[in-house]
Amino acid sequence: MVSSDQLIEIAKRRGFFWQGSAIYGSLAGFFDYAHLGVFLKRRWETLWRKYFLGLDENYYEIQPSLIMHENVFKASGHLESFADPVAKCGKCGNAERADHILEDVLKENFEGVSVEDLLNLIKKHGIKCGKCKGEITEVRQFNMMFPLKLGVGKQEKTGYLTGETAQGAYVNFKQMFEVCRKKLPLGLAIIGKAFRNEIAPRNALIRMRELTQAELQIFFDPDTIEEHPNFKDVENYKLQLFPFSNRQSNKIEELTCKQAVEKLKLPKFYVYHLAKVQQFYLDVLKLPREKFRFKQLSDEEKAFYNKFHWDMELNLDSLGGWKEIGGVHYRTDHDLKGHQKTSSQSMEISLEGKKVLPHVLELSFGVDRNLYSLLELAYTEEKDRTVLKFPRAVSPFDAGIFPLVNKDGLQEKAKQVQQLLEEHGFVVFYDDGGSIGRRYRRIDEIGVAAGLTIDYDSLKQDDATIRDRDSMKQIRVKIKDLPQILRKFLQGEELEKLKS
Amino acid sequence: MVSSDQLIEIAKRRGFFWQGSAIYGSLAGFFDYAHLGVFLKRRWETLWRKYFLGLDENYYEIQPSLIMHENVFKASGHLESFADPVAKCGKCGNAERADHILEDVLKENFEGVSVEDLLNLIKKHGIKCGKCKGEITEVRQFNMMFPLKLGVGKQEKTGYLTGETAQGAYVNFKQMFEVCRKKLPLGLAIIGKAFRNEIAPRNALIRMRELTQAELQIFFDPDTIEEHPNFKDVENYKLQLFPFSNRQSNKIEELTCKQAVEKLKLPKFYVYHLAKVQQFYLDVLKLPREKFRFKQLSDEEKAFYNKFHWDMELNLDSLGGWKEIGGVHYRTDHDLKGHQKTSSQSMEISLEGKKVLPHVLELSFGVDRNLYSLLELAYTEEKDRTVLKFPRAVSPFDAGIFPLVNKDGLQEKAKQVQQLLEEHGFVVFYDDGGSIGRRYRRIDEIGVAAGLTIDYDSLKQDDATIRDRDSMKQIRVKIKDLPQILRKFLQGEELEKLKS
Repeated sequence: MVSSDQLIEIAKRRGFFWQGSAIYGSLAGFFDYAHLGVFLKRRWETLWRKYFLGLDENYYEIQPSLIMHENVFKASGHLESFADPVAKCGKCGNAERADHILEDVLKENFEGVSVEDLLNLIKKHGIKCGKCKGEITEVRQFNMMFPLKLGVGKQEKTGYLTGETAQGAYVNFKQMFEVCRKKLPLGLAIIGKAFRNEIAPRNALIRMRELTQAELQIFFDPDTIEEHPNFKDVENYKLQLFPFSNRQSNKIEELTCKQAVEKLKLPKFYVYHLAKVQQFYLDVLKLPREKFRFKQLSDEEKAFYNKFHWDMELNLDSLGGWKEIGGVHYRTDHDLKGHQKTSSQSMEISLEGKKVLPHVLELSFGVDRNLYSLLELAYTEEKDRTVLKFPRAVSPFDAGIFPLVNKDGLQEKAKQVQQLLEEHGFVVFYDDGGSIGRRYRRIDEIGVAAGLTIDYDSLKQDDATIRDRDSMKQIRVKIKDLPQILRKFLQGEELEKLKS
Repeated sequence: MVSSDQLIEIAKRRGFFWQGSAIYGSLAGFFDYAHLGVFLKRRWETLWRKYFLGLDENYYEIQPSLIMHENVFKASGHLESFADPVAKCGKCGNAERADHILEDVLKENFEGVSVEDLLNLIKKHGIKCGKCKGEITEVRQFNMMFPLKLGVGKQEKTGYLTGETAQGAYVNFKQMFEVCRKKLPLGLAIIGKAFRNEIAPRNALIRMRELTQAELQIFFDPDTIEEHPNFKDVENYKLQLFPFSNRQSNKIEELTCKQAVEKLKLPKFYVYHLAKVQQFYLDVLKLPREKFRFKQLSDEEKAFYNKFHWDMELNLDSLGGWKEIGGVHYRTDHDLKGHQKTSSQSMEISLEGKKVLPHVLELSFGVDRNLYSLLELAYTEEKDRTVLKFPRAVSPFDAGIFPLVNKDGLQEKAKQVQQLLEEHGFVVFYDDGGSIGRRYRRIDEIGVAAGLTIDYDSLKQDDATIRDRDSMKQIRVKIKDLPQILRKFLQGEELEKLKS
């Protein structure tokens, strides 16, 4: 089993990511993506974009500013309530997150507990300062938004770095509705940064001060929530569910979408999207079913404006178990209503003569958390090698291309193969350094799905060997068939079945 | 001729971009990209990435945090000198950018002039407050960095939003050198946000407080600056140059790279990259040659650490002439030396036994400015239509796909074509709303390069018509040949030559 520290060390040594501002002793809560991290991140984002924007022809991607008007966050409630409880040591002044220090000791979740109760609990259980063992004398709410002074002198205004990409979709909803098809559901996707002044950033990419989110805000007519036109496609699809009532038994329940609607009293529109999200993890990313679940949050745990809130969780050994990597939030009309009130502009739209204030279903993904999870789930130690067994669709490169030796025209042939594959849109790289065994180890270590080798026979037969990273099996394929065969391989086909 | 206001209105109405936080009266210096803007931006970025990372196998993309340690910007000099002169009205307190109000009146450039001289010039020319006509009583330097308080209590630290993507490459240079090929030149590309507290944001995407840059930092051995291994490939390539000595004559000089080296005393390593940048504009983006030039900056105009500094400029009618859209900056060892001093960590690397502190050549592009420019250069009014004649390679979609009528299986056939093209990596969209003429107008208005129509003959002949947005000519092509023909068309081939 790999530890979180080991994973961070591997990520650093191999060029995926490391702490930001490292030459200055680093800055807690900030990570820089190195080149392989960028490839991996782009893969994940491209798959996400294609899959979720593909759910409906009326779904679009937008890129709002990261800095927005103060009123955006007044309306959303962020300025008032986007806060975490901070516990302060009376002796040394050290600040810690109050609910987390309780959680660490009592192995329970204390999210949503009042600051008074947190302080009482800390005292009751004799929890002391993590730095100096002094007494914790104060617990208060600490707002996590980052304010900024914009402009100078009389024109100076306050703006804020956004705390979630979602607000950028809400403030642009009306305008986007106007320039697009003027119908619901309208989906606005944003892949972008969000900023949170975390009291105690931790676990590398899991709790950061600057993070990347991929979120899809689906604006829909609340009168249609009990239906989804494609519900039939998923009604027998089995969801991995961990409802609140199972917290004691710790049991995951497999329910079909139809059963989830009946048994858990969830609307079809909501359950349809649970299915789509789960399919993204199991069918697109091809993660193991037993590693994935939806966890239902209790009323105390979820934000007050979420009527339904189930988190996506992955079971991550390096972090001691199930970790939230995103959530499916039915935010009702909370956000549009808030902006309507604060801006005095109507957020209603007109649908066949009917005035509608749309409701919002939010599919929210922490991109960095997802990448950390991919790294952990991929990490494999074998007898003679360590391998990153990324799902083929997200490995940082589709293939490495190697001439067996650096003479007799093998390099030129290999570069022709590189060019052919790049023309077909593959992300490949060429390597002619060191023995072929060493080059295979190198791609194993960074998780490249396929190794293509050009040998002397390749010159005669116009073919190449393709090696599967995971099984280490090889087959020979004609170069003209390579694009098609590599595509099928990356889609998950077994190598044996691809012989040309 | 289209004005800047008209362009901004078009961008808004058609769904490219608009001012941020618009429902709250908007926030100066911030723009949100709507769906078509996102497509256009991604196209530009993808072309940039492919072209510039393709210049050398040792060039990589990284994504550093936007918020960095205070010392990063101490070392870089941003905290001391990343400032603009602000002129303050003694009567109403209004703040304006001192050099710009002079520039507006005197039609000269006042960048780099001292605050004392600026105030004297303002008084001498009787320039008054733009708001109240009161007297301007003060000019002082205003630092444009955005500070942030990170964490809480005793652990609180100051961080900054980055003012240029470049610093993220410099602070990661040593680590990237170690995990990559350990050789020079090493190129680190970043496409990301930068933040500048502009005194007076203006001209939409031209001067923003939150902007996107695409920058390539090339770290090289200064001993090799007089050479470039591929200089021969460009020695007879003609550059569009506007040297400082031509400011009076206002004449662009066409010099070959070889002549530029000899006549302008520029090193080959620098001139080679001028050629590559110009080729990006003329051969990849296919912008008109006469719209592009490199402008040499004077010693007063350029940053003190730039030994050579030529800006890329495009001639934009809507902004009254030539506008900077990027620059080629030879920053010497200024940055690495600064970080070496401030961090007390050596930035030297070892090259075959030789200790080298690399020098940096920076290729810097303002992405938003480039997109604004594309929009202006594309905007065309014709007798019966307005068209956005984007270069085919950057149009937001590759093609629109239309069934002639919505019956008799034409829709299904059109959707098959859509699927075929998407499988081949094309970005297309399907539209069956309104008359075919209206649908053509719609794609003309948003600049889609090709329109594909499925009619009754298509069912019999398994073909489609492809219509060229610019010439409005049409040809019929077999559907099985469509991917190949569309690819050639997008590469710039004339429609007539593509008949199948």
